Amino acid sequence: MLAIAVLVATAAAIHGETDDGQWIRPARDYASTRFSGLSQISSDNVKQLRLAWSFSTGVTRGQEAAPIVAGDTMYVVTPYPNILYALDLGHGGTLKWKYEPRPAAAAQGVACCDVVNRGAVYADGRIVFNTLDMHTVAVDARTGRELWKTKLGDINRGETITMAPLVVKNKVLVGNSGGELGVRGWLTALDLASGRIAWRAYSTGPDADVLIGPSFKPFYASDRTPNLGVSTWPPDAWRIGGGTMWGWISYDPALDLIYYGTGNPGPWNPDQRPGDNKWTTAIFARRPDTGEAVWAYQLSPHDLHDYDGINEQILLDLDVKGARRKVLVRPERNGYVYVMDRATGEVLSATPYGYVNTSKGVDLSTGRLQLNEEKTPVLGKVVRDICPAAPGMKDWQPAAWSPRTGLLYLPHQNLCMDVESVETSYIAGTPFVGMNVRMKAGPGGHRGELTAWDPVAAKAAWTLKERFPVWSGALATAGDVVFYGTMDRWFKAVHAKTGEPLWQFQTGSGIIGQPVTYRGPDGKQYVAVLDGVGGWAGAIVSGDLDPRDSSAALGFVAAMTDLPQYTAKGGTLWVFSLP
Amino acid sequence: MLAIAVLVATAAAIHGETDDGQWIRPARDYASTRFSGLSQISSDNVKQLRLAWSFSTGVTRGQEAAPIVAGDTMYVVTPYPNILYALDLGHGGTLKWKYEPRPAAAAQGVACCDVVNRGAVYADGRIVFNTLDMHTVAVDARTGRELWKTKLGDINRGETITMAPLVVKNKVLVGNSGGELGVRGWLTALDLASGRIAWRAYSTGPDADVLIGPSFKPFYASDRTPNLGVSTWPPDAWRIGGGTMWGWISYDPALDLIYYGTGNPGPWNPDQRPGDNKWTTAIFARRPDTGEAVWAYQLSPHDLHDYDGINEQILLDLDVKGARRKVLVRPERNGYVYVMDRATGEVLSATPYGYVNTSKGVDLSTGRLQLNEEKTPVLGKVVRDICPAAPGMKDWQPAAWSPRTGLLYLPHQNLCMDVESVETSYIAGTPFVGMNVRMKAGPGGHRGELTAWDPVAAKAAWTLKERFPVWSGALATAGDVVFYGTMDRWFKAVHAKTGEPLWQFQTGSGIIGQPVTYRGPDGKQYVAVLDGVGGWAGAIVSGDLDPRDSSAALGFVAAMTDLPQYTAKGGTLWVFSLP
Repeated sequence: MLAIAVLVATAAAIHGETDDGQWIRPARDYASTRFSGLSQISSDNVKQLRLAWSFSTGVTRGQEAAPIVAGDTMYVVTPYPNILYALDLGHGGTLKWKYEPRPAAAAQGVACCDVVNRGAVYADGRIVFNTLDMHTVAVDARTGRELWKTKLGDINRGETITMAPLVVKNKVLVGNSGGELGVRGWLTALDLASGRIAWRAYSTGPDADVLIGPSFKPFYASDRTPNLGVSTWPPDAWRIGGGTMWGWISYDPALDLIYYGTGNPGPWNPDQRPGDNKWTTAIFARRPDTGEAVWAYQLSPHDLHDYDGINEQILLDLDVKGARRKVLVRPERNGYVYVMDRATGEVLSATPYGYVNTSKGVDLSTGRLQLNEEKTPVLGKVVRDICPAAPGMKDWQPAAWSPRTGLLYLPHQNLCMDVESVETSYIAGTPFVGMNVRMKAGPGGHRGELTAWDPVAAKAAWTLKERFPVWSGALATAGDVVFYGTMDRWFKAVHAKTGEPLWQFQTGSGIIGQPVTYRGPDGKQYVAVLDGVGGWAGAIVSGDLDPRDSSAALGFVAAMTDLPQYTAKGGTLWVFSLP
Repeated sequence: MLAIAVLVATAAAIHGETDDGQWIRPARDYASTRFSGLSQISSDNVKQLRLAWSFSTGVTRGQEAAPIVAGDTMYVVTPYPNILYALDLGHGGTLKWKYEPRPAAAAQGVACCDVVNRGAVYADGRIVFNTLDMHTVAVDARTGRELWKTKLGDINRGETITMAPLVVKNKVLVGNSGGELGVRGWLTALDLASGRIAWRAYSTGPDADVLIGPSFKPFYASDRTPNLGVSTWPPDAWRIGGGTMWGWISYDPALDLIYYGTGNPGPWNPDQRPGDNKWTTAIFARRPDTGEAVWAYQLSPHDLHDYDGINEQILLDLDVKGARRKVLVRPERNGYVYVMDRATGEVLSATPYGYVNTSKGVDLSTGRLQLNEEKTPVLGKVVRDICPAAPGMKDWQPAAWSPRTGLLYLPHQNLCMDVESVETSYIAGTPFVGMNVRMKAGPGGHRGELTAWDPVAAKAAWTLKERFPVWSGALATAGDVVFYGTMDRWFKAVHAKTGEPLWQFQTGSGIIGQPVTYRGPDGKQYVAVLDGVGGWAGAIVSGDLDPRDSSAALGFVAAMTDLPQYTAKGGTLWVFSLP
């Protein structure tokens, strides 16, 4: 136990952490492990867990945010209208203050799939978060006073922001959403103190826009040609080509590199954008100070199936084929867990973690995904049983890693789809998709799974099936407990080693939030999660969509018609502890 | 203990109860005691109470409903859009089915003070409840299938329904809301099997409309003149004179009488309606089969302060001045607890239960409230420090009675107001008030109280002060525990004998719901309550009202500007039990 604690403490120091009792960013640490060294709540006693207190956010759209804990205060951001609440942990969760940014209502009509927000970040006495209407705001963590508010884009062009920012070296890193509306993706860095824009790196276009320069050394030779962000597209298509950035960012202080992925190319109809469509569905490694690219790797060149590449990068030191490597583990939407050398961008392994028929593997010599031509969309023809479906094997919902078990805990879905591609044309601020989609359960009939994945052995240790997509984040603790939530209103604790169910609690609404844990001012360990079903997967409930319209929510509704039989809308914070 | 239990069981039998483990109507029994014979949860062990499960209603307007328990199912009705949920108590609160009546959206604009619903009732395999848009519906309690739906009025005339129906002898009893919009009040009986209207008794107008006939024998001689519902009004003013019925009904099977009260006269400006304005702010005793009136008593003749008379009647057998009497106890909005002979309508005592300066007492020889002329509104002049304010000493929030302590537990407010009456004119479906009101805290500065009232001694046994109006119902149990909720997010248990705080829990949103208790299929005792702040008192939060507009919510906002600092909107069911 002591050895483990030391190891955890060291890892925390490496990744810029201060205190295991805090939870200052959605993933807790820069390595994005979502692992806590707290062990008061353990696999032995978690069955005694009970609700300590709660808080209603007053907003009932999908709640994807992680509660943030800094000092004796918890911070929660709601979906649109993006209210920030500060709750007093020293006084049982009473409301300290709230900050209401009052984003433009029109932003709701632009957001593709519910009006979610994935949370705030704490840094240097400030709480920083994004509003749906393209602003980043910083408020005083103590008083709730607005320090600055910066406009980053334009909802009239289809842009929104749903992601949680990350703060690295006094830079606030923010990306945009809108890949289904012909938005051109970017990552922008703002100065933490002033809110001024420091740099912006586009995902498409000329190298100058993508911040590709002399430092750029991608691992695969085919990626080294200049201006691929232009030449892998039809003329000017890169201007409306997607590659938005609405997911997760990691940071390695030793290498001084940030890592993040880009979204799908637009439109979905692939015939309208011949070429590799760089740098959509790609991972970038960049310098946080300047934004300059150090390497990039495209996960799904010329994406055919909306396989956004925005998922989390978990930064680990693993023994791969006998040698210790600094790796980046990416559970990808296209169905593979990638293990990559994070210094170079080399793919060390890529293994399916569920049923995949859209591709046949990744060629490790070229790094290239090997497509299954049978599942290529064809204009005007229905192509059936494409697996995984558009949300991929796993969407935004972040995994957790435990150094005690060496396992990655992947909340994900098991969905396939039938598609028909159709012509579409670009009108700013409106859907730019060109694909009729109808989703359904994958093999076995269940729609979700929590998979414990061994990235060294490249295989699953165990898998738990769930009725609905597991659209919540996962949390792993030094007590050997893994927490996650389900869309049918269960907050669950399972044994980190075996997956054995240890405890579950029926919450008010379905859960798509990110569980976190912290040490309260009273010295006790707490576990917190937001309920409030919604997001793309739960839009049938949060958006009151008609279950008879199988194309609603870009075809997701077809797979979720029974969700309203299990849950209504919600938006409540649940905080648990031992008695 | 045994003697008490027998007494309770007998009372239950008298009042038509079947099983202390159920809770089939908001007040539990016909006597409206809100007392349960369950004692597993007691003053000794209530501190161990913990959340067993929860359910989000998906609606975040004010939640005033009592959860209804019949068999192994719990039924919850939401505010507009009045969704009925059936929750499976045998399976930890999973959703069995829901029924969506889809009331007209325009009803929301007509409701004076939030779009609340006070709950459903179970009878003969049916769940019956009302929708905001003037319908009563009955659904099959097992399947959720709609059995009938009857339209009772017209939202275009300003009518809505917010009250919980009562079923007596196969009649469903329903009243209308809209006293602030010139609505003419009534109580209507529908046939439980078919939904057909059996009778309707208006509160104003000719005796034929009021169902006053040969059986009518009011106690006080001045009430025996024919057609007072016309002659105590300016010509035709009774047609738009209020007297709506949105509160509580009790029933005495032995006397075969139902009891209910009527609302304030309209408009609030009293100069526009000289006369007693009968039968507004009155209690009626009627035959449930025919609706014919047996007696009536006007609590606040020519009401000056919006003192609706719709509160609950608690039917008890008490020793009054040495003799056992069948009494009706009415904690009234005008500030007095009335103890009345429920066979005759005689007022036996009327005692203030808080600070009252609008009247000087009730003349027991005439039954007439003695007004303080100094607090009479005058056209164009601000009259200050009127106590209690328009919501009265106690509004709709229902009290509980314990036969074990002989105490009535009154959740109520401590508010005063400044008013200025102004001319108003009637336009159908629009506000018809004629009074500018600004409310504030009463003496002592706190705005709410839970008072334990001894109706025999006619004095308070103890009082607990609360920051905000106690707008929730109360619940008393044979475990000597009294439960109630606060608008600042506390669900509280106190000792029934002493008021000693025993336990409290921080819920998600403020509580204005009615707590209930029941025995689950597992034999355990549970306590359930809805959170979700709102109603007239909490409209500043549920209706997003501007705190700078002190006239908002008919002047209530002025007294509640700090409520948003304590709670956001909500709508979650909380179900507690011992470990």
